[in-house]
Amino acid sequence: MTNAVAVHGVGTSHFGRQPERDLVALAWDAVHEAFTDAGVEEVDAVWVGTVFGPPGVAQRVLRAMGITGIPVITVENACASGTTAFAEAHEAVRTGRYERVLALGIEQMSTAFDGAITPEDTDPEGRTGLALPALYAMAAARYLHLGAATPEQLAAVSVKNHAHALHNPRAQYSGRYTVEEVLASRMIADPLTLLQCCPTSDGAAAAVLGPATGGSREVRVRGLALRSGVPWNHASPHVWGHDIVRDTAADALAAAGLADVADVDVLEVHDAFTIGEIVTTEALGLVKPGDGGAAAARGDTALGGAHPVNPSGGLLSRGHPLGATGLAQIAEITWQLRDEAGARQVEGARLGLVETMGGGVSVLDGNACVVVLLEAP
Amino acid sequence: MTNAVAVHGVGTSHFGRQPERDLVALAWDAVHEAFTDAGVEEVDAVWVGTVFGPPGVAQRVLRAMGITGIPVITVENACASGTTAFAEAHEAVRTGRYERVLALGIEQMSTAFDGAITPEDTDPEGRTGLALPALYAMAAARYLHLGAATPEQLAAVSVKNHAHALHNPRAQYSGRYTVEEVLASRMIADPLTLLQCCPTSDGAAAAVLGPATGGSREVRVRGLALRSGVPWNHASPHVWGHDIVRDTAADALAAAGLADVADVDVLEVHDAFTIGEIVTTEALGLVKPGDGGAAAARGDTALGGAHPVNPSGGLLSRGHPLGATGLAQIAEITWQLRDEAGARQVEGARLGLVETMGGGVSVLDGNACVVVLLEAP
Repeated sequence: MTNAVAVHGVGTSHFGRQPERDLVALAWDAVHEAFTDAGVEEVDAVWVGTVFGPPGVAQRVLRAMGITGIPVITVENACASGTTAFAEAHEAVRTGRYERVLALGIEQMSTAFDGAITPEDTDPEGRTGLALPALYAMAAARYLHLGAATPEQLAAVSVKNHAHALHNPRAQYSGRYTVEEVLASRMIADPLTLLQCCPTSDGAAAAVLGPATGGSREVRVRGLALRSGVPWNHASPHVWGHDIVRDTAADALAAAGLADVADVDVLEVHDAFTIGEIVTTEALGLVKPGDGGAAAARGDTALGGAHPVNPSGGLLSRGHPLGATGLAQIAEITWQLRDEAGARQVEGARLGLVETMGGGVSVLDGNACVVVLLEAP
Repeated sequence: MTNAVAVHGVGTSHFGRQPERDLVALAWDAVHEAFTDAGVEEVDAVWVGTVFGPPGVAQRVLRAMGITGIPVITVENACASGTTAFAEAHEAVRTGRYERVLALGIEQMSTAFDGAITPEDTDPEGRTGLALPALYAMAAARYLHLGAATPEQLAAVSVKNHAHALHNPRAQYSGRYTVEEVLASRMIADPLTLLQCCPTSDGAAAAVLGPATGGSREVRVRGLALRSGVPWNHASPHVWGHDIVRDTAADALAAAGLADVADVDVLEVHDAFTIGEIVTTEALGLVKPGDGGAAAARGDTALGGAHPVNPSGGLLSRGHPLGATGLAQIAEITWQLRDEAGARQVEGARLGLVETMGGGVSVLDGNACVVVLLEAP
């Protein structure tokens, strides 16, 4: 016997550089809001996603809220840590292991990093100082070389997501930029300029999951999938991250009983860099191969377009506190499917998709990818 | 529908200071042995327990063995990280989520630590420099003060476990020590001397789990439980770690349908410090309150005694690479229940117990505790 699973409540902290706050304070904001939203005062178990949180960080932040004595499991899966916590919480409710479960994502990066994350020096990329922006920049350079995107189309993703974030009071950054302003911002890793890279962020996000009972504010988990990467190198047919997203999305759509990703009304995807969103929309099958950049430039993926992507502002604008990101995406889609997203609401959204992928282990097409399909009450 | 779950194979690296080896090499030893032991060449998913492993370490060590493309989830739960990975792998097989799952524990401490692990400085213990040995020393001092143990009884645990380790070629340390020699070794945290403290260790351990099919070498998972700590302070009725072990063991015995821990033939428990084993045998209900030290001194918990504890040598002698420890305990009990433990074999052992607890978050009675009951083929 298995249960249909629903998101009963979500919450997040503000996102941004908040070195003066600690993880306890950030987690408090997210959990308090999620509990209030779900109308619960306790849960039966907790999964916590974090990448750079120190050992015991989950128990430490939960202790501060009086959440003790129940099973707590900390998971790490690169940028997909938060959505991995969500996937594990979902499985626990689905199988009846626990009735009500908290999935929490936490990360404080401003106190840990001065600049970009560098891969481990046991990997060739790490040894040569090839930080994450450079890995994405290589994908972007290949797109430009092949004519699969133009610099202006890369920039269009940043213009769109920063404009979306104007309507998201929790976002780290927002602004009405032009393509020219994005291209003129400081070069980080050619061809990716500053406004095409996600910022250093602190934040927390949470979701309370339980059995679906048909409640008027319950967002149902229609299906999800989790994968790790397979061998990949720079000579592969697709750029880094394409295949793992494509395959995870296919698994998730099958689990949800959906034939076509075009049926999805609103998406939050992993746009750590502008090229990331372009590759992802193509890998998801939302747009044709090589049309991701053009679709962004045409406004197809903007609010009001055919397939609105990252109405929250995405990682580029909302911020990317690694372990929290996946659950921030879940929170945004939950609000969208409940018609609670205010000025960034996608009208009539019934089906939503969350995609998070991340990694940086040499010769692998990503450490992990999670795709979740959520359905309106 | 749920499956009865069995351990199909186990493996470990050598344990000890091995800074010249890396986690890939250590993990290879453990996984290769476990796969060979189980007679399998692949698994459907992997849970990896580690405390200080860097982000992505699981994918990195698995990549080196060609284990890619399947779900991989890294978990952290202090000293119980390895047994938490085991508990999650067990749940996945029990519910039919995956058919065959690898639980892997990895830790390289010699390259990360010069001395004892200090709690986070956001906790009062951490701020005052109260490292883990000091936390255990306070429990030991209280036992001595109350007359619940003598210095000689504390030392007897070390004498016993180091003698057990003489028969374990994978152990970090072993030796025929006298009580006097243990007490005369260098003072680490009064009253705990060097030989009463687990060493800095590197190692890996693994188990392959799958449905129980009645195979002649399958060790069945009879029941298990996982808990996190509840509020505790130094004025509590019991010393740190007692209550969480007691309650987790009660859960595990209930899950296994066992009325009495005395039915267990062989145990591997968390003896990070001598006082830890004494508290644990009492909390498990194996010996009466206040009789843990005397039981060790009498030989009740030695090989040949009524309740052999830590035939492997335990953490004190085998070593304590945090994330690997729980699975090293699982491996030892698996060998014992298959009558494959050589000179340290507990004759006719039919029921075995693994207990791991750990933590160091202020005001909590441990971050986590896992108790597993295993049954002979």
